[in-house]
Amino acid sequence: MRGGIDLGGTKIEAVVVDDDDLVKGQARRLTPTDGGPAAVAAEMVAALREAAAAAHTEPERLSGVGVGSPGEVDTRTGTVARASNLPDWQEPFALGSALAAELGTPVRVGNDVAVAVEAEAALGAGSSYRSFIGIWWGTGVGGAVFLNRKRWRGRGSAGEIGHTVVKLNGARCLCGRRGCLEAYAGRSAMERRALRATKRGDKTVLFKLMRKKGHARLTSGIWEEAVHRGDDLAVQLIDRAIEALGAAAASTINLLDLEAVIIGGGLGSRFGDEAAARIATEMTPHLLRPDQPPAVHTAKLGDQAGGVGAARLFHPAQAERVGKQT
Amino acid sequence: MRGGIDLGGTKIEAVVVDDDDLVKGQARRLTPTDGGPAAVAAEMVAALREAAAAAHTEPERLSGVGVGSPGEVDTRTGTVARASNLPDWQEPFALGSALAAELGTPVRVGNDVAVAVEAEAALGAGSSYRSFIGIWWGTGVGGAVFLNRKRWRGRGSAGEIGHTVVKLNGARCLCGRRGCLEAYAGRSAMERRALRATKRGDKTVLFKLMRKKGHARLTSGIWEEAVHRGDDLAVQLIDRAIEALGAAAASTINLLDLEAVIIGGGLGSRFGDEAAARIATEMTPHLLRPDQPPAVHTAKLGDQAGGVGAARLFHPAQAERVGKQT
Repeated sequence: MRGGIDLGGTKIEAVVVDDDDLVKGQARRLTPTDGGPAAVAAEMVAALREAAAAAHTEPERLSGVGVGSPGEVDTRTGTVARASNLPDWQEPFALGSALAAELGTPVRVGNDVAVAVEAEAALGAGSSYRSFIGIWWGTGVGGAVFLNRKRWRGRGSAGEIGHTVVKLNGARCLCGRRGCLEAYAGRSAMERRALRATKRGDKTVLFKLMRKKGHARLTSGIWEEAVHRGDDLAVQLIDRAIEALGAAAASTINLLDLEAVIIGGGLGSRFGDEAAARIATEMTPHLLRPDQPPAVHTAKLGDQAGGVGAARLFHPAQAERVGKQT
Repeated sequence: MRGGIDLGGTKIEAVVVDDDDLVKGQARRLTPTDGGPAAVAAEMVAALREAAAAAHTEPERLSGVGVGSPGEVDTRTGTVARASNLPDWQEPFALGSALAAELGTPVRVGNDVAVAVEAEAALGAGSSYRSFIGIWWGTGVGGAVFLNRKRWRGRGSAGEIGHTVVKLNGARCLCGRRGCLEAYAGRSAMERRALRATKRGDKTVLFKLMRKKGHARLTSGIWEEAVHRGDDLAVQLIDRAIEALGAAAASTINLLDLEAVIIGGGLGSRFGDEAAARIATEMTPHLLRPDQPPAVHTAKLGDQAGGVGAARLFHPAQAERVGKQT
């Protein structure tokens, strides 16, 4: 059996899978919002132990634990830097060795979106396509492009569709740049915009739901509930996100003419087939060949894509393919 | 020897090359603005005959003539449709067989930008890179992506960077869509915008230069002269084009992390290294890894890339690689 941990800006998902990638145990914890990398690593250890217990095993008996992490990941050393959605995590932190010491098993660290999309390519919605783009819509917007069934890495940093310019001189992104897709569709950017709107006097249930649920952030579940209650601000911001996602996805299809678009990530999984259908609709007016649209699907592994994908860092068929991921 | 014809919205360039792709004869004619496909084909025949004469040969003695054409090209049949920059050329026209009948030699027809970028990949600025994007800045904006030294075709229509959305709900493109790169940087779109500005009372030398030179359109040479004279409107529209080109190029690098960007096409060749340097500058603020920028070069074969690339449709090393191009 292998372990996998998906480290998100909002939550930590741990799984233990068997040789066929079937989930045998699972655990979920909220990502600490303070205490820095050490506090986050401690919660990751606790989540993995819990998942192992649910699978009737112990971390020490796993063949390894893979981690999908945000930020700049050095896959050779297991070090993570500039994870801006995690607390006080700008400087490089040796996440891999910290976890390995506590868990007593080898640990490999990969890019969060890359491992999730690898899982979809091998086991999920991408498995029937030779070429597709995975767009991971969550706290930020990440991606991975598969060409001839292999992830295209470029010089090591490919896949960053979140920083496609969808609007020249547009909204300021959390990365500091202007007009990025993520400035319109990333959950952090949307939360910041919602906060500014309420300060201007706009009414919304978003922050009431957040307090009621005891969260420090607007989670995907909160966005979904607000939209389904017909909250004007939430509806407007999700519409704006989907418009931007559709434009960036269509631009990618015009450039690469891929067979499919697969939508994952926290918000992508939460809004599910509705998100996929609405993104497909928003793509249409921008497609140069609307008569030959790509298939648009939701990630099939859902919430588990990240954990199962991370566990695949120790899968014999994939381990060799995981080169440098940043 | 082989022949090549680059069919542009403004001009027709014909070359005759030897087995080493060296240009032995060359001719240039303006693209007819009326008379439909038949008139255009007649000018192409005349240009190729002239190039053959300059190379001390005759069309009948060439091993074949390749054509790089705008519009929707069916490479199997040599038919071209919807070439909106050419006169009355919406319906499919059997360009390949019309030329073959007149010239007495086999003819193959490919996509204009694809053949030009193939030439740069084999012989020009792309030859030292494993991965690059060619951005052809002319009447429209076309492109081709090379990955592992091969042109990525996708399902057959890849490369259309001109229809990347650079501005959500932005300017109306000649293709009917909104916010496309081509709506900002294509020479046709720029001409239309310049015309509207003069109707509003803006002063410009652009149309005076056009009349003086006896042209029906604002050629790349006219744009260059107006910019170098400091014409406000021309400077402003070229600045706007370069800003949009920089954003689309940077988005491509963020997504694919390619080694290089190669700028070609009529305007790209005309503004040359200045265009490449300015596009590189406009890319920088949008690059996720500005510490690792791609190389940015001008197409090395310049004006001849299209003709030489078209002639390569009969090059033994390439003929087999030219599949369906649309």
